[in-house]
Amino acid sequence: NRRYTVAVIPGDGIGKEVVPEGIRVLERAGQLHGFTLDQQWHDFASCDYYLQHGVMMPPDWKARIGAPDAIFFGAVGWPETVPDHVSLWGSLIQWRREYDQYVNLRPARLMPGVPSPLAGRGPGSIDMWIVRENTEGEYSSIGGRMFAGTEREIVIQETVMTRHGVDRVLRYAFDLARSREAKHLTSATKSNGISITMPFWDERVETMAGDYPDVRVDKYHIDILTAQFVMNPDRFDVVVASNLFGDILSDLGPACTGTIGVAPSANINPERTSPSLFEPVHGSAPDIAGRGIANPVGQIWSGAMMLDHVGEHEAAASILRAIETVLAEPRLRTPDLKGTASTVDCGKAIAQAL
Amino acid sequence: NRRYTVAVIPGDGIGKEVVPEGIRVLERAGQLHGFTLDQQWHDFASCDYYLQHGVMMPPDWKARIGAPDAIFFGAVGWPETVPDHVSLWGSLIQWRREYDQYVNLRPARLMPGVPSPLAGRGPGSIDMWIVRENTEGEYSSIGGRMFAGTEREIVIQETVMTRHGVDRVLRYAFDLARSREAKHLTSATKSNGISITMPFWDERVETMAGDYPDVRVDKYHIDILTAQFVMNPDRFDVVVASNLFGDILSDLGPACTGTIGVAPSANINPERTSPSLFEPVHGSAPDIAGRGIANPVGQIWSGAMMLDHVGEHEAAASILRAIETVLAEPRLRTPDLKGTASTVDCGKAIAQAL
Ligand SMILES: CC(C)[C@H](C(=O)O)[C@@H](O)C(=O)O
Ligand SMILES: CC(C)[C@H](C(=O)O)[C@@H](O)C(=O)O
Repeated sequence: NRRYTVAVIPGDGIGKEVVPEGIRVLERAGQLHGFTLDQQWHDFASCDYYLQHGVMMPPDWKARIGAPDAIFFGAVGWPETVPDHVSLWGSLIQWRREYDQYVNLRPARLMPGVPSPLAGRGPGSIDMWIVRENTEGEYSSIGGRMFAGTEREIVIQETVMTRHGVDRVLRYAFDLARSREAKHLTSATKSNGISITMPFWDERVETMAGDYPDVRVDKYHIDILTAQFVMNPDRFDVVVASNLFGDILSDLGPACTGTIGVAPSANINPERTSPSLFEPVHGSAPDIAGRGIANPVGQIWSGAMMLDHVGEHEAAASILRAIETVLAEPRLRTPDLKGTASTVDCGKAIAQAL
Repeated sequence: NRRYTVAVIPGDGIGKEVVPEGIRVLERAGQLHGFTLDQQWHDFASCDYYLQHGVMMPPDWKARIGAPDAIFFGAVGWPETVPDHVSLWGSLIQWRREYDQYVNLRPARLMPGVPSPLAGRGPGSIDMWIVRENTEGEYSSIGGRMFAGTEREIVIQETVMTRHGVDRVLRYAFDLARSREAKHLTSATKSNGISITMPFWDERVETMAGDYPDVRVDKYHIDILTAQFVMNPDRFDVVVASNLFGDILSDLGPACTGTIGVAPSANINPERTSPSLFEPVHGSAPDIAGRGIANPVGQIWSGAMMLDHVGEHEAAASILRAIETVLAEPRLRTPDLKGTASTVDCGKAIAQAL
């Protein structure tokens, strides 16, 4: 019997509703495929914790999390009580850096039976991976404010890109593209307007393309790229992007497939020198939290990506099939997909479909 | 007989094809409504000019443009011969700053008869204005590169926001929202990730909202906002955004209405201390340039915005009606809208429909 240790962190809002469904499905998969998850649940990295302790995480959070095989995370943020940049920089964004999870991998795939907001697009017509740089770029903490509170007030924030940081995520994306049938990599840029960092990004893409003659490479400025996601989503296979552009594309891509409620993501440290983290793309969704109607598929699919990461490929594939089976059934879908199922109904249905 | 001086700058690629159609329609509108355009055509601000002169514009470009009532611009950029950041910073981006055109105003409207890539959306269901900050923000020229050519290479680029710069564009957007029936303003932010500049942007929005109790204000992070444009475009009325976010939203919004080929834009200096500039949202489109199939509607509609700016409101409205009439007719549409008309056919049809 194979055992994996998993840190489970539900966080805020619908994170607390969808994580249990993710665990339900993972446990069932373990029974069927012969592995056990040793779960360590943590209540920190939530705004409730912040309100009690004045910090998002205890000072010894790293020791408490230890060295699990993976982290299974829900969502964080409750802007009514804690400003978003405080809650996020005190948890998720910190983890991505401290654990050097420099690849954020996110699929967008149109599933059978799921209604797409795009006209005339059927299953198979959208099937892409977004590879997002996850530790530097536009998400820097460098900068500041001058003349605060006066008419002359000014704020500055730096975007920082390093050859080290750009090359390693590009290499991951090129390798992924090479492993796919289409062998097609699209780079998101904005070198016509963002005139220092983005031309550098383009240069690194061009240089690395030399090592991958078998991969077809193109680039789009981010503005027209978002337009192309809507007009011609079938043109894309693997899309590599900076931290901010990847953030945008990995919400927009899933939206084109029907809902961001189904989109999973993996924050990966490819060298495995520290744990990787698996979380849905959606956030804590305060507007629907507490009503039991959140779509658990993004969390469950993130669980499948986690199993792939630890080496349980068969179990991961069977979860994906179970998701497809359930999504094809309107009555088993949650309201964001025009269904009537609750979060728990949908989670149970997927566990059963295994 | 009223006279207006207009600097006409076709630029590159399809700019050279659609500007003449814009002029055709403007001249016809002048005949019908009793005004004349004194046109001064310029060949600079094009990559051809750059290849001949080594600069995008002559040193005395400001004197040559003089003080027209408006600038009517096509598009610039020909990346095969001149890198985009060179051509753009040497022309359009420079103008926006030198002429202090701090508002970039861009409508996205679903027109009768135009097929939308979104399922089940009809005319009227998308009708928004995007107000983009146009002189500061993410488009700064501050930053640089260190350790170039080595493994330690690093690039830094600063985003700069000032209270002066943010407040004036917000005020424009709030005033515009107030003038509309829905009185609804959406602010694009990313204050959960971009932790210095975007929280400042949010603060200024919140402060100014106090002066506009009659305007309903909400905010979305840019990632989920792009998703909402696809899933619920009818939720938006006026959207205000930073330079980069506005750039993205004003390509994505028009894409949701069928094509960015019809989208116009106005780079406005509201105080009229310097000329405003009118240009389509689309670029020079090297992939289709020279084939006579570019959609001239974005350019023509930009001409209507220009007429509105100089005070010819009736003529502007009649151009809009003519555009609607022609777009409703599949055979008068260009190929991007699944029609068979050429650029010239479509331009002539709109002139005639006046
Ligand atoms: C060409 C480019 C620099 C420009 C911009 O990003 O501002 C264009 O995309 C636009 O939207 O006007
Ligand atoms: C919550 C937020 C800081 C985060 C991000 O921007 O990275 C989220 O949008 C995501 O995509 O994981």
